Formats: sequence, C-alpha cells, structure tokens
Amino acid sequence: MEDITKRPIGIFDSGVGGLTVVKEILKELPKEDIVYFGDTARVPYGSKSKEVVYNFSCQIINFLLEKNVKMIIIACNTVSSNCYEELRQKFPNVPIIEVLGQGVNSAISYTKNKKIGVIGTEATIKSGRYEQKIKENLKEAKVYSRACPLFVPIVEEGCLNDNISYWVSKKYIEDFKEFDIDTLILGCTHYPLLKDSISNFVGENINIINPAIPTALTVKKYLIENNIQNLYGGKCEFFVSDKNDKFDFISSMILNKECNAEKINIEKY
Amino acid sequence: MEDITKRPIGIFDSGVGGLTVVKEILKELPKEDIVYFGDTARVPYGSKSKEVVYNFSCQIINFLLEKNVKMIIIACNTVSSNCYEELRQKFPNVPIIEVLGQGVNSAISYTKNKKIGVIGTEATIKSGRYEQKIKENLKEAKVYSRACPLFVPIVEEGCLNDNISYWVSKKYIEDFKEFDIDTLILGCTHYPLLKDSISNFVGENINIINPAIPTALTVKKYLIENNIQNLYGGKCEFFVSDKNDKFDFISSMILNKECNAEKINIEKY
Repeated sequence: MEDITKRPIGIFDSGVGGLTVVKEILKELPKEDIVYFGDTARVPYGSKSKEVVYNFSCQIINFLLEKNVKMIIIACNTVSSNCYEELRQKFPNVPIIEVLGQGVNSAISYTKNKKIGVIGTEATIKSGRYEQKIKENLKEAKVYSRACPLFVPIVEEGCLNDNISYWVSKKYIEDFKEFDIDTLILGCTHYPLLKDSISNFVGENINIINPAIPTALTVKKYLIENNIQNLYGGKCEFFVSDKNDKFDFISSMILNKECNAEKINIEKY
Repeated sequence: MEDITKRPIGIFDSGVGGLTVVKEILKELPKEDIVYFGDTARVPYGSKSKEVVYNFSCQIINFLLEKNVKMIIIACNTVSSNCYEELRQKFPNVPIIEVLGQGVNSAISYTKNKKIGVIGTEATIKSGRYEQKIKENLKEAKVYSRACPLFVPIVEEGCLNDNISYWVSKKYIEDFKEFDIDTLILGCTHYPLLKDSISNFVGENINIINPAIPTALTVKKYLIENNIQNLYGGKCEFFVSDKNDKFDFISSMILNKECNAEKINIEKY
C-alpha cells in the first residue's frame, strides 16, 4: 500500500511571492517534500477577473494532483479570496488550505480594539473576502481595506528600503493612522518583504500579520492530527510556467538560495 | 469581389499601452476601421520569455485574421523585439508592421552625434534588437539601453507626475546624462505618458522618440501606395482577454474616451 506520509505537499502562487509561504512551511516542517508551482507566465493575478483566476487555478491544481500531492496550500491571496470555495467543491478529494483564513484567525486573536487593516492586490481587496471573513468571526470588527497594486512590482525590482518603497508605502498606507487600527494583515505574499517600509507609516505598536506564519502552523497541526506527517523527506521541487532571471533573483531574496525551477506548459492541464 | 479597402487594421499589444499607437493611427487615418486586441489576462509580457511571448502572439494574430484584417500592427515592443521575424514567417499572407523598426528609423534621422538611448521592458532590452537594428543602419552608432520594469505599473496606477514617477524615473534615467546622448527612444507603448518625468532627467535638448508616431506615418504610406486606404470607415472595436476597470481607466487617459472592450477567450486560438 502506498505510504501517504511520503507524498509531497503542493503549494502554488501566481508567481514567486508564494515562496514566503514555502519559507515558513520549511521552518515548521523541514522534512516534508514540497512541490511548488509559480505561474510566472501569467503573473500577476491581482488585476485579473475572478473567472480567469479560477480557470488558471484549476489548471495548476490538476498539475499538482498529477504530482500526487497529499494536500494543497493556496499561497496566493488573490486565488484564496476569489475562488477558495469553488476550488474546494471542484476538487473534493484533496485537502486544500488557504492563507486568507489563517491570516484572519491570527488577526482576530491579536486585535484588542477590533479595528483591523487589510492590504492586498486589487482582486483580493475587491473580493471583499477578508472583510467578510473577519466579520463572520468578529461581528463588531471594523475593517479598513486598501489595494496596493505597486507593492508587488517594487518588491520584484528589489526596492525594499529606498525612496521608491518609501513613497509607494506613503501613498497607500499613510492615512491608515487615522483609522486607529491595532492590527494590519499583509494580504499578499510579497508584502512581508516590505514590512519595514510599511511599519514606518502605521506606527510601531501595530501587530503586522504575515498569514504565512499561521498557515504553516495549521498545516503542521493537520498533518500530525491525521497522522500523515513526513519525518524522512525534505526535497523541494519548483515548477514555473515561464523561466527568467527574476525567479532566481527573488527566490534568493526569500529563501537565501536559488530554486532551480523547471518550466512546464500549464495551459495543457 | 470583396473590397479590401474596407477591411479593418488589426493592432495588438500585451495590454492597454498599445492604445497610444491607436491614438496616433487615428490622427493620421481617422477613416480606417480598427480592431484592437489587448492581452489583459496575461499582461505584462515584458518579464516573460521569448517562447511564451511568441505563442501568445500567434494566438492573437489568429484571432485578428478571423476578424479579416487587411494588415497587422504589432504595437507591443516586447513582441516586436523578440519575435517579429518569426511571426512574419509564420503568417506570410498578411502584412505586419511593428513599432520597433519605425522607432529606429526615426531615431537615426534625428541623431547628430550618433549616441542614442533606448528604454523599454526587460524582455525588449534583453533581446538586444533595438541596438542591433540601430547599428545595422548606422554602423558608428553608440547605443545605451536600459530596462525600466516599474514604468508600466506606475503608469497603470496613474502616477504620471508625482513623487513616485520622479524617483522611479531618477532610478532608471539619471545616469543617461553621462552618456551624452542626443536622442532617446521610448521603447514601450506606455512610456509616452511619462514623457514629462523622463525629460526632467535627460535634459531639454534631447529628442525623445515615440515610435507610435512614425509607425502611423508608415502605415498611411503603405495603405496609399497599395491603394487600400479606407476613406469611408472609422469604426473602432476593442477586444481584451480579461475585463477590468483598468482598461477603461487607462483608455480614458490615452484616448480621452472609454473603449467599451469586449472580452474573448484568446487561449482557444
């Protein structure tokens, strides 16, 4: 009989940002095998419609299932917020965990004054799913959301602590101070890399939530409870829909190593 | 017999930037029918590989041929610079004109000191085709090229004359002064919208070339010489692979009107 513990965990994102989730998973579960897919040919998802994002995600999940994954982590907030339920219905036979729900749970446990900020891509914010999910679990919460479309491209240009990241953060974040939030969710996997620039404008006493961290803890708990944790692996495989220098550049920034990603044709799935 | 003059001109780009080419075509040829396709589901092309860009372009040309176009204008510099020759070979029965060659001709006629700057997306600059094409026509030319990946996203955020466009222009353009260029080619259809920010850093006496302008003149000349100019049309149809507010926002900036684009599934072509 096949040993399910040895099957890999599938993780996907619109591009390279999801590697911040891989990073946290590797901290908690260094002996799991991982198959990562980044849709670098069609990135970014954040400005695309729900229908397009859903179709791309189905292709990716089909690819990961072919890799025999035992569970799937949606690292992409745009996918999480736009089509998590639809994907669970479409693929009922594989457990799917998404970053968004984990970020929400974490924010709710941190907030004291129940005023929570959320920043993300246009599609994530437009979906309203962070706000909806927060209010489902904390009815009195006030949620302040903001789309920050330039954060992903400036991270991908390596502008992490310079005049550009300063002015872009100021543009998006400055007036959050007026809202008196005590918790801010980084609703996009690229944003943890801008944490310093962002803190400048929200103030030091704000809890800044990186949903990758609670996601990793939830995955670990799930594997242990279901007795499917791998204690003998540790192999990471990276796949992309297009190969260029950027993936290597950013994977070095995030994981401190190059990933040597393999290119596949995702449109055929 | 079908009247070829009445068939539309096909124009395509990775997204909305190509509307700056439509704008110049409409100035020169207001009575032509136009079919525009913007690949908004897969934009940007500038950070993608040659193979992916070629495959996307073939799908788009198949779509335009189905629309019975009499000629095709590649408004996208990334496509122009990476696969113009391959596309001409693949589609020998329709005339194809590209922005890159027109920009080069114009720069060569303007330059006095034979020092020419070129700015564009990563893929455009990496292809080396601007430099190669300039030197084919002006052997002694010195060409200074620079990829400016943040220009497209900041234009799409409407950052045209603010601190962000200032610092981003400074990052990419400031040291062009040292090169003593007298001509700068805007090798991306979005860049004409940043002309003011860019001029700040290259100085007032530099000829800034928007390749859309000579492209429109070349198209007009071609239609007249081949006796296929339309004098009785003027209808513009806009198609996109994904529909969102951005297309309307930017088309308003460029064409001073909304385009009411229709969404189609480009992957089936």
